[in-house]
Amino acid sequence: MKRTTDAKNPLIDDREIEFLLYDVLRAEELLALPAFAEHSRETFDMVLGSCRRLAREVLFPTYRELDAAPPVLAEGRVTLHPKMKELYPKLLALGLITAPRPHGVGGQQLPLVIDTVAQAYLCAGNVGAAGWIIMCRGTGHLLEAFGSEALKREYMDPLYRGQWTGTMALTEPHAGSSLGDLRTVARPTSAGHYLVRGSKIFITGADQDLTENIVHLVLARIEGAPEGTKGISLFAIPKMRREGDALVSNDVAIAGLIHKIGWRALPSVALELGENDDCHGWLVGEPHQGLSYMFQMMNEARITVGVAGAATASVAYHEALGYALTRPQGRALGARGGEQVAIVEHPDVRRMLLRQKAIVEGAISLVVTTARYADLAEHHPDAAERTKARTLLDVLTPIAKTFPAEKGFEANALALQVHGGYGYSSEYLPEAWMRDQKLNSIHEGTSGIQGLDLLGRKVMARGGEALRLLAGEVTSAIDEARAAGVAAALCDALASATATVGETTMQLGAMGMSGDAARMMLHSSDYLDMASTWVVGWQWLRHATAAQRIVASGGPRAAYAEGKLCAAQYFLETELGRIPHLARLCTSAEDSYARMNVEWF
Amino acid sequence: MKRTTDAKNPLIDDREIEFLLYDVLRAEELLALPAFAEHSRETFDMVLGSCRRLAREVLFPTYRELDAAPPVLAEGRVTLHPKMKELYPKLLALGLITAPRPHGVGGQQLPLVIDTVAQAYLCAGNVGAAGWIIMCRGTGHLLEAFGSEALKREYMDPLYRGQWTGTMALTEPHAGSSLGDLRTVARPTSAGHYLVRGSKIFITGADQDLTENIVHLVLARIEGAPEGTKGISLFAIPKMRREGDALVSNDVAIAGLIHKIGWRALPSVALELGENDDCHGWLVGEPHQGLSYMFQMMNEARITVGVAGAATASVAYHEALGYALTRPQGRALGARGGEQVAIVEHPDVRRMLLRQKAIVEGAISLVVTTARYADLAEHHPDAAERTKARTLLDVLTPIAKTFPAEKGFEANALALQVHGGYGYSSEYLPEAWMRDQKLNSIHEGTSGIQGLDLLGRKVMARGGEALRLLAGEVTSAIDEARAAGVAAALCDALASATATVGETTMQLGAMGMSGDAARMMLHSSDYLDMASTWVVGWQWLRHATAAQRIVASGGPRAAYAEGKLCAAQYFLETELGRIPHLARLCTSAEDSYARMNVEWF
Repeated sequence: MKRTTDAKNPLIDDREIEFLLYDVLRAEELLALPAFAEHSRETFDMVLGSCRRLAREVLFPTYRELDAAPPVLAEGRVTLHPKMKELYPKLLALGLITAPRPHGVGGQQLPLVIDTVAQAYLCAGNVGAAGWIIMCRGTGHLLEAFGSEALKREYMDPLYRGQWTGTMALTEPHAGSSLGDLRTVARPTSAGHYLVRGSKIFITGADQDLTENIVHLVLARIEGAPEGTKGISLFAIPKMRREGDALVSNDVAIAGLIHKIGWRALPSVALELGENDDCHGWLVGEPHQGLSYMFQMMNEARITVGVAGAATASVAYHEALGYALTRPQGRALGARGGEQVAIVEHPDVRRMLLRQKAIVEGAISLVVTTARYADLAEHHPDAAERTKARTLLDVLTPIAKTFPAEKGFEANALALQVHGGYGYSSEYLPEAWMRDQKLNSIHEGTSGIQGLDLLGRKVMARGGEALRLLAGEVTSAIDEARAAGVAAALCDALASATATVGETTMQLGAMGMSGDAARMMLHSSDYLDMASTWVVGWQWLRHATAAQRIVASGGPRAAYAEGKLCAAQYFLETELGRIPHLARLCTSAEDSYARMNVEWF
Repeated sequence: MKRTTDAKNPLIDDREIEFLLYDVLRAEELLALPAFAEHSRETFDMVLGSCRRLAREVLFPTYRELDAAPPVLAEGRVTLHPKMKELYPKLLALGLITAPRPHGVGGQQLPLVIDTVAQAYLCAGNVGAAGWIIMCRGTGHLLEAFGSEALKREYMDPLYRGQWTGTMALTEPHAGSSLGDLRTVARPTSAGHYLVRGSKIFITGADQDLTENIVHLVLARIEGAPEGTKGISLFAIPKMRREGDALVSNDVAIAGLIHKIGWRALPSVALELGENDDCHGWLVGEPHQGLSYMFQMMNEARITVGVAGAATASVAYHEALGYALTRPQGRALGARGGEQVAIVEHPDVRRMLLRQKAIVEGAISLVVTTARYADLAEHHPDAAERTKARTLLDVLTPIAKTFPAEKGFEANALALQVHGGYGYSSEYLPEAWMRDQKLNSIHEGTSGIQGLDLLGRKVMARGGEALRLLAGEVTSAIDEARAAGVAAALCDALASATATVGETTMQLGAMGMSGDAARMMLHSSDYLDMASTWVVGWQWLRHATAAQRIVASGGPRAAYAEGKLCAAQYFLETELGRIPHLARLCTSAEDSYARMNVEWF
């Protein structure tokens, strides 16, 4: 019952990336920013070319093996699949760990727009394997931003080279999302380091046999620090610490391996720090600032989760599309006899495929658009533009984190469904990608937490400025779409959604101002769903604009652009139509779960 | 990282079953039907008591082991988990295989309403293990209905005793849902049997080491039969055929084992019939009537899939509820310091739980209500009432099959989500139930096929009579709710949905009458979603009526009834609000996937 992996799965469609980068986002305009002056469309294509090759030719063909044989823990050490050891140097050779970082730290100053697409190819090939270099980058960047020169030399440099790998050690067994309750404690010593003691759980990549050392960036409380989130500091804690010329054990024990249901190239580990009171940690930055440091990285990590979600839905979509194009079964409605047709001919199969396309390409567009604001926020020469881009980046982050995870999961389930009975077997890959996808609604802040972040913080900050800016972007896109001749019904649908989101937010803001924060926040998940649908609707209208122009000018890309117009129509008519109902839930007196007494369950 | 299974998970809440059977459905009224005259509430409770005990004390505690070690194929034989061999006689001892069948064939004439609940407990305990006795019943019933006396004696009797197990062998590798294309062929012999040759795939339970023999009920084409579905006949093909006093091999080979992602107590097998031209089959009933015979059982099987879906969502919901009640994390919005609260205190966690409750209890109510019409269709003394009940049973079947599968999958994903990072590990059970659930949107007719069946066949038959009857039932329930003092907003919401469903169906019917069947059927999945939401809304309004009465009379059940009112409010306000949009999609010109050319993907 084996089916060989279809080598033709593109993971992500190159036509889509060209369309998104150059027709929709005009990525070449970023070259006008001084930071990116040395780049060109050619360098962009080189980076993307090497990543997509590795993803297609190396990561994807080994995906099944790595999924089938996850890391094992024996005698206190985690051993990875042998193939992971072959993949790791190939991943390093891409240079992607530092690609978007400045030349000064060994980077290439690559726009995040391009970097995001490059990551997406790798994640579509094997999200867990790609995770290793993403962890190196995230931890290196944290040290680059907040570490002393000594810490950078000691830890950032090997992380950025991939010589060592890194982890973010936040979670403790009794305090998952509630970081203020963490108990790991750090006692200062006269030697400059701290002695750290505590338990951490769900630490991604916290042991491996790829590199000689691992750098854990650990949240802990300095003895005597204030309670809650204000007393949390950040420490660099290597698995092996340097003593003279040697690396010696730093009292970081592997307490357990979590049997994750996906992302199986990347172990999730429970750590016991300082069991022998000999775990040395070095303070990163100032005391008690750990959470704010970590949150800077967390926001990057959240966008990366969005990329992983979009990529995981994409590879499954292409697998389902390939299957539907080649699997004969049944006949057209009303037809009698004759050969069976490919299942893509059945309208409901085409619905499932178009829905996946709308989710996948909408999600990719969302995360790359978010990355574009990150580029502008960092590198635009005009301070006002940087501030504007930062505000847009901040408000889009919870959406970019959640939409690909939640709707991507639906798309992954549809990819399985398109495969029928075969989809329910592990001989076929869609079930594995569905397992991979499920993590994305949980890690780096659950979907529920993203809803609280969006409505409670991002949207309400500075009198609702972020939403005004976002509505401005959307309105420009509507004007452009009308000018390009996109169907008026689609433009009107997005305009109407924009008005509804604005009014709903005003009403919720008024509730909050009147002191009823609980009522304002009650439907934060519905609000996130509404806002996400609107923002992805914006993506699809921009795609329709670019597609309309391509169709009008004819040529070989016209067929793909026609598909874009169908997907845009599907999303804008099917999904935006949900917004009025979601808006009513947000502002109405629907208080079922508010008044649901715990005793009544 | 092990967590022992929580023995307190009730699988299904007994309070819910009492409420549903006696407050909502007035199951004791069935005792007035002559067929059920020997029963009483006491006999009902005895059956349910023994099933729920076995489910809780035997099936559930071994669920994890059976999931972790699926059946294996070696030397052409499938070996089950050793625990399955211990469970099987205990399942037989319940007497459930024949419980709803007549006394004449060894049954107890138990109402299907009660039988359905009994099955639900078993499925919630271990859906795959329960599958074995469900297969015995289904195959036995097919022979009871259409087999000769000789076939009944030879095969039905051992199936009904569970001495042998049975399978339904429909699917072939090249023709999943398209049964008209099946190629297995049967050549008559002068000895009365046929020689059968062909390949079958996804045959549930087609090999095991539980019993000495297996009876395959196989669809095949008699040599020279007409093409398509009209040339299909039904055969009984034992694994071992009787020769004299001995059972000898009947040339039924195990060609492969599908690695299913769930239902792991029950293997899915590929069969090769007649490789040595020595596979004897016996015709069941008349030639060329196989598909109509099989479809009678298929409809039973579809309701059973609904039961499995509701049960699988239920056990996960109760696990999530237990976790949320006991897992401390975080504090109330705006609170500073103090102890962490149980996560059930967070509104968004309560939303996820109430949504699961609304789906689970709505789904159970749906399948038991459908079973009630099956009881009336079979046993009501008045022929007109039987016809009415049959019509309602037929129209509810695709809904009872699909809603628990599709919304149940969402509920299962929420149960995982409530567990946070722990939910993403196989140390906890929600991920396993999510895998189990996914099958239900695929087997016994995919969700897409149910949509075609509902809109194309069931709703449009006899001038839309089924929907008129259903609307009549719903309208009575609305009247009853108003009389009981249920909130007018909830009654109005269901009345409005009833009108919308009716108008939408009329418009679609007019499209079909005008010859545009493709357009009528284009949004059949949206139609199924709309109709399912409406029908489950009807369940919830009936629950609200019963709950309102309990709350009004006070007493110990008032707290549970208050929870019912919250869940009813949640479902009716949150879900029925989606109906106008779904109705617009069904009747509008939204033709994105209709016009999506295959070349444009």
